[in-house]
Amino acid sequence: MMRATLGSVGSMKILVTGFDPFGGERINPALEAVRALPAEIAGAEVVTLEVPTVFGRSIDVVTAAIDELRPDAVICVGQAGGRPDVTPERVAINVDDARIPDNDGNQPLDEPVVEGGPAAHFATLPVKAMVQAIREEGLASSLSNTAGTFVCNHLMYGVLDHIAARGGRIRAGFVHVPFIPEQVADPRVPSLPLADVVRGLTAALTAVVSHGEDISLVAGATH
Amino acid sequence: MMRATLGSVGSMKILVTGFDPFGGERINPALEAVRALPAEIAGAEVVTLEVPTVFGRSIDVVTAAIDELRPDAVICVGQAGGRPDVTPERVAINVDDARIPDNDGNQPLDEPVVEGGPAAHFATLPVKAMVQAIREEGLASSLSNTAGTFVCNHLMYGVLDHIAARGGRIRAGFVHVPFIPEQVADPRVPSLPLADVVRGLTAALTAVVSHGEDISLVAGATH
Amino acid sequence: MMRATLGSVGSMKILVTGFDPFGGERINPALEAVRALPAEIAGAEVVTLEVPTVFGRSIDVVTAAIDELRPDAVICVGQAGGRPDVTPERVAINVDDARIPDNDGNQPLDEPVVEGGPAAHFATLPVKAMVQAIREEGLASSLSNTAGTFVCNHLMYGVLDHIAARGGRIRAGFVHVPFIPEQVADPRVPSLPLADVVRGLTAALTAVVSHGEDISLVAGATH
Amino acid sequence: MMRATLGSVGSMKILVTGFDPFGGERINPALEAVRALPAEIAGAEVVTLEVPTVFGRSIDVVTAAIDELRPDAVICVGQAGGRPDVTPERVAINVDDARIPDNDGNQPLDEPVVEGGPAAHFATLPVKAMVQAIREEGLASSLSNTAGTFVCNHLMYGVLDHIAARGGRIRAGFVHVPFIPEQVADPRVPSLPLADVVRGLTAALTAVVSHGEDISLVAGATH
Repeated sequence: MMRATLGSVGSMKILVTGFDPFGGERINPALEAVRALPAEIAGAEVVTLEVPTVFGRSIDVVTAAIDELRPDAVICVGQAGGRPDVTPERVAINVDDARIPDNDGNQPLDEPVVEGGPAAHFATLPVKAMVQAIREEGLASSLSNTAGTFVCNHLMYGVLDHIAARGGRIRAGFVHVPFIPEQVADPRVPSLPLADVVRGLTAALTAVVSHGEDISLVAGATH
Repeated sequence: MMRATLGSVGSMKILVTGFDPFGGERINPALEAVRALPAEIAGAEVVTLEVPTVFGRSIDVVTAAIDELRPDAVICVGQAGGRPDVTPERVAINVDDARIPDNDGNQPLDEPVVEGGPAAHFATLPVKAMVQAIREEGLASSLSNTAGTFVCNHLMYGVLDHIAARGGRIRAGFVHVPFIPEQVADPRVPSLPLADVVRGLTAALTAVVSHGEDISLVAGATH
Repeated sequence: MMRATLGSVGSMKILVTGFDPFGGERINPALEAVRALPAEIAGAEVVTLEVPTVFGRSIDVVTAAIDELRPDAVICVGQAGGRPDVTPERVAINVDDARIPDNDGNQPLDEPVVEGGPAAHFATLPVKAMVQAIREEGLASSLSNTAGTFVCNHLMYGVLDHIAARGGRIRAGFVHVPFIPEQVADPRVPSLPLADVVRGLTAALTAVVSHGEDISLVAGATH
Repeated sequence: MMRATLGSVGSMKILVTGFDPFGGERINPALEAVRALPAEIAGAEVVTLEVPTVFGRSIDVVTAAIDELRPDAVICVGQAGGRPDVTPERVAINVDDARIPDNDGNQPLDEPVVEGGPAAHFATLPVKAMVQAIREEGLASSLSNTAGTFVCNHLMYGVLDHIAARGGRIRAGFVHVPFIPEQVADPRVPSLPLADVVRGLTAALTAVVSHGEDISLVAGATH
């Protein structure tokens, strides 16, 4: 394991967050899956946190937990309805541009997440190793190049910016998960059983524990 | 159980068939899943059979097995690459119209499966009960209204026509299954882990054992 | 022109029908496009008709018009939201199985369109020539093997059964058209501009006028 | 018109580039459409340029043309096979990560476009006004939040970085266009007729001419 711990003799600690339901859904598979994670994965302690799907407050809740828990890594998880697979996110951009209101009724259009912040932050997790680990579980996975412009991208950007601003070594990023079958009526909309979502996240966390550096893998997108 | 057995004291017998790989694929998830089925499901004996993806021969192989085994039900299973869910088929039409050659190089265009046969045969399995049973496993399922015009539809039509021509009580039909993740490179193409395909088929077979009549379920398609 | 007319000195007459809006939509691109067709295509007279999206009444309205107008061909047009291209239908099945209520609130489940009718009727239009003609306009087109189980399939089956029962020579079938862009908010849902839908239908009608027999074309579906 | 020209008395000049075919395709609808643009749009002079689908060289060719022509705006156009609509791009990221080799056989993995450059550059075109203008032509359009990680993103980033490094006022960005029907065999793959692609680009260029500032429009993505 690559992680240099400062005086710690214990295991790695990973903070995993899941959003509450939004957009008219009654459940959020991200939150359901996060709640179902075991307390320990690959020797690492897993701490989970429910996050409101709200601009601003979501960042406040997670960064407060980071400052308090001082985890080694942070993985935020959200729902990407319509995607067929589990998708670690490569990058978050400095834009809030909401297609629908968040759970507090906010709907910012073309505003920065952080005034004066860089245009984007790349995930500092080993995203390709995570994709490969999920695939080795027999599950579909791909690397995503956009987390959208709603609260998911907002939180990912905010967390990475918070850590970068403090010069910290905490690695952080985001994973989007599909609908679960219970949410889908239209047979053309893909979904993934909840147990598979949990297996996929567990594999992704295992990759975070075991890979200090990312791997080389052909996983780009032509568009 | 509704099944009227004629003097039989034993359990129900179900023949489950799976196609070999076609169209440039190295595996066929239908065959992989059929091979992984247990020998007994819900008290019924499960007999499995590999079928060549070839016009004519596929029907010969399955109807010969039907005549020899005299099963209570026949469920043919095939791959539907691109579909996100497990889909029992409602109907087979009397057309062979191949977009690609079969595994023997045949490519019939607009020919009848059975010269002089009816335009279509409906599945005689409880297809909606099968959909519901698969969903109760936490898996996505929908009722399909087309099995295409290639060897899958050909076999389904041929088996149903063979049974109908003999006035038999054997119930028969077809289930299409998605790609498994190992077959898919494009992240936009949906897939389902093999273990879930096996669970889905097992649930479908359980529904066949337990339902002599189909259930009422809103599962139609607007187009 | 292949058509053998018995004593007729006039041109061919084609009845083209379009459904009114349904399923919460405010417009139906099928009806909009049918209304925009010219009065004459390839020398044939084009008569258009609005049809209610209602089980039973839709068949009554169209068969009454057939009996009165005595057209040479009937082309019913409907919306297939989510399909990316213009799709002539190959076959209609003898099932009403509504996922949503029709415009009169009827929602039949697993009932026959025509009690005692054949399992299916194949379109008697030159469907592959229609596909090819639409493509030659630079538009996407494919042959569909299911018209669903809602009012579109219902009307196609009912019209073909009405004509078959009278031993008539009237050719008939169905064409599904995509959403138009004005109907679509989700960027993943395909659509086709109305002017292109009109061009596609015009090309399809031209093929009906010029082809008494269908052409040979690789246009089948593997599933 | 907002553009402040320094001493210029002539019209606005817009450089529009299109990539040559790649990935096994024989045509690139982007190049076909760019070639079909009129020489003048909304009073602006349109200069077109063919660009090789090659890392490095594509940026060299376009930035050389920028330095020579000194246009007011640069719009690079590329193919996004599988997208159903015309999509202006919001942002380019500082990553080359090729899923397939480019036309010279290069396949960089996880390398920066510009060593030491910012994580991303936002388009400086009025992207939402472009989306709206395309929609007003009756065509589908949406704002994309990822141009991928292949040569399209590479060129967009490189052009924006070149202009930013020189402190220039030239506005620049990228538009992805769908396949045209001639490229598509699978009926599930969306496409757009070439004439519509040309109309869409023309509308987008008109918006660039008429909007110095972007408009406010709900056009974000939840993921």
